[in-house]
Amino acid sequence: MTCELCTSPGGDVLWEDQFCRVVHVAEPGYPGFCRVIWNTHVREMTDLDDVQRRHCMNVVFAVERAMRNTMAPAKINLATLGNMVAHVHWHVIPRFTDDPHFPQPVWGVRQREGAPVRAGTSSLAQSIRSELQTH
Amino acid sequence: MTCELCTSPGGDVLWEDQFCRVVHVAEPGYPGFCRVIWNTHVREMTDLDDVQRRHCMNVVFAVERAMRNTMAPAKINLATLGNMVAHVHWHVIPRFTDDPHFPQPVWGVRQREGAPVRAGTSSLAQSIRSELQTH
Repeated sequence: MTCELCTSPGGDVLWEDQFCRVVHVAEPGYPGFCRVIWNTHVREMTDLDDVQRRHCMNVVFAVERAMRNTMAPAKINLATLGNMVAHVHWHVIPRFTDDPHFPQPVWGVRQREGAPVRAGTSSLAQSIRSELQTH
Repeated sequence: MTCELCTSPGGDVLWEDQFCRVVHVAEPGYPGFCRVIWNTHVREMTDLDDVQRRHCMNVVFAVERAMRNTMAPAKINLATLGNMVAHVHWHVIPRFTDDPHFPQPVWGVRQREGAPVRAGTSSLAQSIRSELQTH
């Protein structure tokens, strides 16, 4: 069985190194929604070694920091599930009180219609790259 | 406003140190469901300093390791959301193909009835403590 994260970038690549990549995904209602995807096919975080795992989390937290600086969300949501695509990837999601599901998880029951424009989305990519330069 | 994770343990405490605690929560259909809760009221992971953040993640991954060793789940799900209780806590969830929501997130649409018993649940607490002793 082919894995879609092995065979495609999985979104618009904002940053990458030899270990992982940060992609922006087109999730309706969720501008700024990013994923951090480990490049090789690894199932669980504890299948990575300590150095790899720390690197992966440093990238996740750099994305969180960039999101907070550029978009000022009400809350950041972080999750690695992989029930359908068992290849380590993190959802990094800026949440706002008027987004489609707030305060429910994005996988929960939709609370409202509409897809508000978010200030700061356009500078997110540059901010992520800046955070990861010093990394 | 009082925060429920400041005023109560938030579950059956399996392990704790001065920074955080691991609790087992009674989620119907999800034996083994644990949370790692930061003791002080901190909103986002990037509000912790590097050492605290690394410690928190080391505890999360120790719980993941213990779950895999004792329960052999199909997948581990990790998430920190905090949209309703904005006090850093991680959901560490062993997922099985016959659990109520699989392959959906536990916050998604229920896929089936029933709450299977899971082998290994009874030794999870001891395994978590063992993983964290060497930590």
